[in-house]
Amino acid sequence: MNFIAKLNKAVERNDTLVCLGLDSALSKLPAHLKDDPTPIFSFNKAIIDATHDLVCAYKPNTAFYESLGASGIEQLKQTCDYLTATYPEVPIILDAKRGDIGNTNDGYIDFAFDYLQADAITLHPYLGQESLAPFLAKADKGIVILCRTSNPGAGEFQDLKIDGKTLYQTVATHVANDWNANDNCLIVVGATYPDELAEIRTIVGPKMPILVPGIGAQGGDIKAVMKAGIGGDKRGLIINSSRAIIFASNETDFAERAREETLKLQTQINDYRKVIPI
Amino acid sequence: MNFIAKLNKAVERNDTLVCLGLDSALSKLPAHLKDDPTPIFSFNKAIIDATHDLVCAYKPNTAFYESLGASGIEQLKQTCDYLTATYPEVPIILDAKRGDIGNTNDGYIDFAFDYLQADAITLHPYLGQESLAPFLAKADKGIVILCRTSNPGAGEFQDLKIDGKTLYQTVATHVANDWNANDNCLIVVGATYPDELAEIRTIVGPKMPILVPGIGAQGGDIKAVMKAGIGGDKRGLIINSSRAIIFASNETDFAERAREETLKLQTQINDYRKVIPI
Repeated sequence: MNFIAKLNKAVERNDTLVCLGLDSALSKLPAHLKDDPTPIFSFNKAIIDATHDLVCAYKPNTAFYESLGASGIEQLKQTCDYLTATYPEVPIILDAKRGDIGNTNDGYIDFAFDYLQADAITLHPYLGQESLAPFLAKADKGIVILCRTSNPGAGEFQDLKIDGKTLYQTVATHVANDWNANDNCLIVVGATYPDELAEIRTIVGPKMPILVPGIGAQGGDIKAVMKAGIGGDKRGLIINSSRAIIFASNETDFAERAREETLKLQTQINDYRKVIPI
Repeated sequence: MNFIAKLNKAVERNDTLVCLGLDSALSKLPAHLKDDPTPIFSFNKAIIDATHDLVCAYKPNTAFYESLGASGIEQLKQTCDYLTATYPEVPIILDAKRGDIGNTNDGYIDFAFDYLQADAITLHPYLGQESLAPFLAKADKGIVILCRTSNPGAGEFQDLKIDGKTLYQTVATHVANDWNANDNCLIVVGATYPDELAEIRTIVGPKMPILVPGIGAQGGDIKAVMKAGIGGDKRGLIINSSRAIIFASNETDFAERAREETLKLQTQINDYRKVIPI
């Protein structure tokens, strides 16, 4: 099944636009897990078991796993294997922000899609479509291109004007018009930039899902995101929260508290989905 | 010691501008290594022992290691540990092409600089200086920013004009003028674009080293690169070759043949260094 179809099914089944970011930094895990031989996997497993019916995707960010080297990569694989075996209906977006020249990308494709069995991967646009062709050719996978990132200094290059259009608008235009022959492209727009999100929704049309990080710890506003970014059929947004959910408690009740926070976010978002146009 | 000082020392000691890319794809290794329990590490070790006195840096590209998951990362660590223990005077440039938002980059910093003990890392510029600040703050490490990449389609965004300057010129200008407070920045310019290399040398001045991939298998011309890119003191270029050297033979003589090819490239480059201006 095509990634976007799988995503939309998960959105419908669980009635949710919440994506849960598994940014499971070892230093932030509850103290009682510190002696666990695979603390990150054990943490993720508990979080996943507590939230799988409330989310439309999980998004592990590779940086938090790579920081531990081979052991972290092993725990990332355990996490993805557990998801694939236990909750195969929930897609995995590998937040890897990769992007190399053509052939070299094959290594990242092996990593994301064969080794981890992820359903989608995030990529930098800087090298262009030709370099990312091996990813774009994966018709059943989601190819998620960074467009307008959530960080305060995102505008340094992304806001620069080219023939009256900003670089991020230009990236969105290329992705929507030229890169998307397999209907497998998505883009990333930070929740911290709702005006830009609205422009980008207009550029990419109502169908392309937009991955929106920056809710929660980074301060993005849910109403503004929903108003600016919602797509057709009351979906088209993958609203990610990480730290605010997974680290809601650092006691033994961490998974329970993660469920409560996920439910709260799901409800807040769904309240806006009921009153579209917002 | 600052990375650029370490690099320049290696350039002087070995009288070379050659950087050897350890793009050690498992599928391309000599057949006799296939039963080795750590074939990539064994391959790299032999290549390193045969070439360490002819190169100014080694550049493993993470994609070729990640493709094998945890086992590949373990062999990348074995490779870096071997280099650090045996040839500590030769810097390691981790070709990772990473780049995430601020805090998240700490995971990549742990991976590159603590776990692998690399001396430098390659990064995407798209998120801007603010996001890359945790890297730029590492005054003793080399922070190598993608500017003009070697792939045929590099121009899709990199050639776009902003107030009369291309995006790659703009990136070079920001890196040289604003990002380089710690004198630890370098940039990447593909050997396949000598005209652009000349422009970028003018922008960044004679001191900033430029990492130049694309010689060898990708077809970049050495004379054109030397003429366009050479910096002050007959250095300032890190000319990378990977496949053309490490896969010169896929028989048991692979390391010996790699030495011959490295020596040939070193000599070709040094012949131009003797006749500057070329």
